[in-house]
Amino acid sequence: MASHESLESYRVEFQPKVPHALRDISTLSFVNEHRVTVDEEIRSLLSHLDNDWVLKCIPSTVVFPRAPLRVGVVLSGGPAPGGHTVIAGLFDALHEWSPESILIGFEDGPRGLLKNAARQLTQEEIDRVRNTGGFSLLGTGRLKIESAEEIAQVAATVQSHNLDGLVLIGGDDSNTDAAILAESFRSQGIHTCVIGIPKTIDGDLQSPEIPISFGFDTACKVYAVTIGNIGKDILSSKNTYFFVRLMGRVASHITLECALRTQPNMAVISEEVAAREMTLPDLVHDTADLVEERYAAGRPYGLVLVPEGVIEQMANVKQLIAELNDLFAPSHHMSSAIKQCQTLTERLEYVSDTISEVSRLCLSMFPQAIKEQLVYERDPHGNVQVSKIETARLLALLVQAELRTRAAHTGTQTPFSFQTAFCGYEGRSSFPSNFDCTYCYSLGRLATSLIARKMTGFMAGITGLHLPVSEWEPHAVPFASLLHFERRGGARKPVIRKTLVDLSGSLFRYFVDHRQAWRLCDNYLQPGPLQFFGPPSLVDTPCLSVTLRSSTLP
Amino acid sequence: MASHESLESYRVEFQPKVPHALRDISTLSFVNEHRVTVDEEIRSLLSHLDNDWVLKCIPSTVVFPRAPLRVGVVLSGGPAPGGHTVIAGLFDALHEWSPESILIGFEDGPRGLLKNAARQLTQEEIDRVRNTGGFSLLGTGRLKIESAEEIAQVAATVQSHNLDGLVLIGGDDSNTDAAILAESFRSQGIHTCVIGIPKTIDGDLQSPEIPISFGFDTACKVYAVTIGNIGKDILSSKNTYFFVRLMGRVASHITLECALRTQPNMAVISEEVAAREMTLPDLVHDTADLVEERYAAGRPYGLVLVPEGVIEQMANVKQLIAELNDLFAPSHHMSSAIKQCQTLTERLEYVSDTISEVSRLCLSMFPQAIKEQLVYERDPHGNVQVSKIETARLLALLVQAELRTRAAHTGTQTPFSFQTAFCGYEGRSSFPSNFDCTYCYSLGRLATSLIARKMTGFMAGITGLHLPVSEWEPHAVPFASLLHFERRGGARKPVIRKTLVDLSGSLFRYFVDHRQAWRLCDNYLQPGPLQFFGPPSLVDTPCLSVTLRSSTLP
Repeated sequence: MASHESLESYRVEFQPKVPHALRDISTLSFVNEHRVTVDEEIRSLLSHLDNDWVLKCIPSTVVFPRAPLRVGVVLSGGPAPGGHTVIAGLFDALHEWSPESILIGFEDGPRGLLKNAARQLTQEEIDRVRNTGGFSLLGTGRLKIESAEEIAQVAATVQSHNLDGLVLIGGDDSNTDAAILAESFRSQGIHTCVIGIPKTIDGDLQSPEIPISFGFDTACKVYAVTIGNIGKDILSSKNTYFFVRLMGRVASHITLECALRTQPNMAVISEEVAAREMTLPDLVHDTADLVEERYAAGRPYGLVLVPEGVIEQMANVKQLIAELNDLFAPSHHMSSAIKQCQTLTERLEYVSDTISEVSRLCLSMFPQAIKEQLVYERDPHGNVQVSKIETARLLALLVQAELRTRAAHTGTQTPFSFQTAFCGYEGRSSFPSNFDCTYCYSLGRLATSLIARKMTGFMAGITGLHLPVSEWEPHAVPFASLLHFERRGGARKPVIRKTLVDLSGSLFRYFVDHRQAWRLCDNYLQPGPLQFFGPPSLVDTPCLSVTLRSSTLP
Repeated sequence: MASHESLESYRVEFQPKVPHALRDISTLSFVNEHRVTVDEEIRSLLSHLDNDWVLKCIPSTVVFPRAPLRVGVVLSGGPAPGGHTVIAGLFDALHEWSPESILIGFEDGPRGLLKNAARQLTQEEIDRVRNTGGFSLLGTGRLKIESAEEIAQVAATVQSHNLDGLVLIGGDDSNTDAAILAESFRSQGIHTCVIGIPKTIDGDLQSPEIPISFGFDTACKVYAVTIGNIGKDILSSKNTYFFVRLMGRVASHITLECALRTQPNMAVISEEVAAREMTLPDLVHDTADLVEERYAAGRPYGLVLVPEGVIEQMANVKQLIAELNDLFAPSHHMSSAIKQCQTLTERLEYVSDTISEVSRLCLSMFPQAIKEQLVYERDPHGNVQVSKIETARLLALLVQAELRTRAAHTGTQTPFSFQTAFCGYEGRSSFPSNFDCTYCYSLGRLATSLIARKMTGFMAGITGLHLPVSEWEPHAVPFASLLHFERRGGARKPVIRKTLVDLSGSLFRYFVDHRQAWRLCDNYLQPGPLQFFGPPSLVDTPCLSVTLRSSTLP
């Protein structure tokens, strides 16, 4: 049933432009750009790396001696559009460097490094997946490489392949692992250079030289299609509220970008909720006010965006979830007693009797379906699966209840009917946008260039993404500058800081300046499906998080 | 934030091709093509229309006298991509017929006809919405025009505007209304011709001369993007089942088309479930078998498509829903007693004690969350909101329970983790595909042509949609040939027959021939986002329900 001329067959032919600085792999140079600040604890953790400078990649005329390179690559964590293009960029650059170079793909994420599940990638394989979606070329996984034993296993793997370089394509966790591996290899005299590539649709892996992680642009564009279509649907029927839940457990970059692209009546930003110390009732009141105000303006319909993680940002909910996680932990003395409760009612009673007064109150606010999710659906570690809690539905149900309560006082019921939608996994494995293809291809070339110069312990970063591709500026960012220590699961661990929405940044300020106008009017935008052919303004423009932030920053 | 060159700005410039037969509005002719069979009861109901022939539109050299026309248009029911293009086609053809012609838009669906809420559409307005999504130009509504009083109000409206024609753009219900209006106007000597346009993303409004309703093509393409992306995601992580719920309360055309476009491991077709008299446990067993077989083949992941309406096709569930609807009907003597039940448990106990044994058993099968939906969330008439029942989640939860039961017998637990997704409202108001634009533009021109010839009581239909546009064959299909009597809400009513998936048709047979191969392998296709520019094979190819069915039918 596959068409002879499927979109895939065209996308593999797409040839991304290359920044001037990355064109000639054989002559480009890295120069110190500016010194970075490194946390003292991190400095001693990564003492053998000793990377104190952000490097900038520039064209040069120095010709380096070129021996074939042996490089390994791993896709890690949730898929993000562009992963295959990074690998194509790596592959092409390796073969430009030397036709005898070899690229080895490790399978199913970091597990492939541990188990040495690997294969040499062929030109044919690469040509079949260029610019296609998903991480299906190699598979992926969420394994963390942490223990000394695991690190030793990985060291054995890279030595067995005699790798000059190892490229980890992943998010904050995977790049933390990459930093530890880089340090460990260097300290043991293993010559394998470790380079990280910033991947995550959440967009929270950033630094001054990493304006955005790859995949964010495409995912937001995919979600904005859905939201824009729903907005148009709302304006056709004019009788329904849509509450759209978006990916983003911690940061609300996706919700903010999608809000700017679609102009909903309301978009909840978790960082703002946390900064204003809003509780769930606060949010419900705000939203109920919106519904009442719009109704008074003759508009019994609307569009509200809600990031999936918002309830975790509320102090009272955070406490409830923490208490439930403790209570259900296999180690807790009551854990098995709870599991023996036969009915939802029994289980809820048992839980309510056990948790704190604050949490009991908080739990009592939730509709039945959400209570059930809280006390039943748990991950293998016994944790509440916050990502499965339907935040949008929760908010809509509580707004409905709030409006009924208000009606009981005022005697007039504000009409309110709602639907919910979820912008989720379909954004992670989409065909990458032209922007993400171009960005990823350059990231791959940059990683090869760093390995060719025997540089280790860096992430690839490119600035100037709002400019024409030829002017993009590739950088090498020391892992050390991105890491700090955090308390996780009871222990202090080195982690890459997540970059949250900057509430004083230009992007959020733009949103604040406009949201009041969007609140009562019908200013929805419908961006329409991601285009790969046609006018450059439709095809090549990166997301607003890149263009707007870059162009208005001093 | 709107780009100066938004997709909308390009889509309004799109100029659909026109079939040879519809090119010259001033000379084309309608000729009798073949006689239709009309139900005797329908014949007497529509006795003044007396349309016994399907007409075919052909180019001719006869020049008709041309006086300016006054035509009204209504968008009715759920939005479908292409509605605005139908109106553009009407408008352009009216002005080609005579520059003094007038197109009047009635607002918010059939309500606009009742209330005479209307405005004359201007060239500027039309040019702003050509080929854009949604029904936002005029709004829409679900009102049915049924009573003698309502029909008289509409008659007064069309007379007040001295309309030569009235075009109803709608699904089966709206076109039934259109038939009654056509008959009523003719019987009263009102000269307004009534023409229907086949709209519904569900694709269940068909006849031999109406191969597909407009909007279906786009909606399926939009859903296939999401399903294809999810398939790619599944093949990246290889540890999750996705259960995707699709639109389609009665017919499963959407699910079938999307299955052919994406090749999932399983796609439930309601018509087959009904024909095989499958119960919910049957479906659960089949799906659990799939999970076990795939696990045995080393594949603990998969993709399953489920039409939203499937559970209504199961005899036991149908009975349960009917009993619940009775019980909660405002007229039922127990209705208020039920509403006084404070908790879900109380309400469920009350309901269980009241319904039949068969239904009690059926209800007991459902997970808590679905039980809650059944006994809480009801539409204003007290009916179970079947469209809100999360069929995909229901099936996944029951499969999970079934696998646990099996594990208790065999001692080995088949790993099963799942996610659900819903392909819903975002498909109704998408930018229409090039196919839908072209189809809708021709439907609009065809409606104008019929009104210009003073023809009433027809639906616009076009055959040969799988051929080059120039060869498409426009037809006029008598309403009488589409109607029959059905029992609805206790009374016999004339309705347009819904066309279900033909289990002996070529499309379903193709699916049956291939699904076994898709079941255990990973043959998912990823069609990728709807393209409007670029290679014709990506841009202009209609859905498989059109191409495959037409090209293989004798």
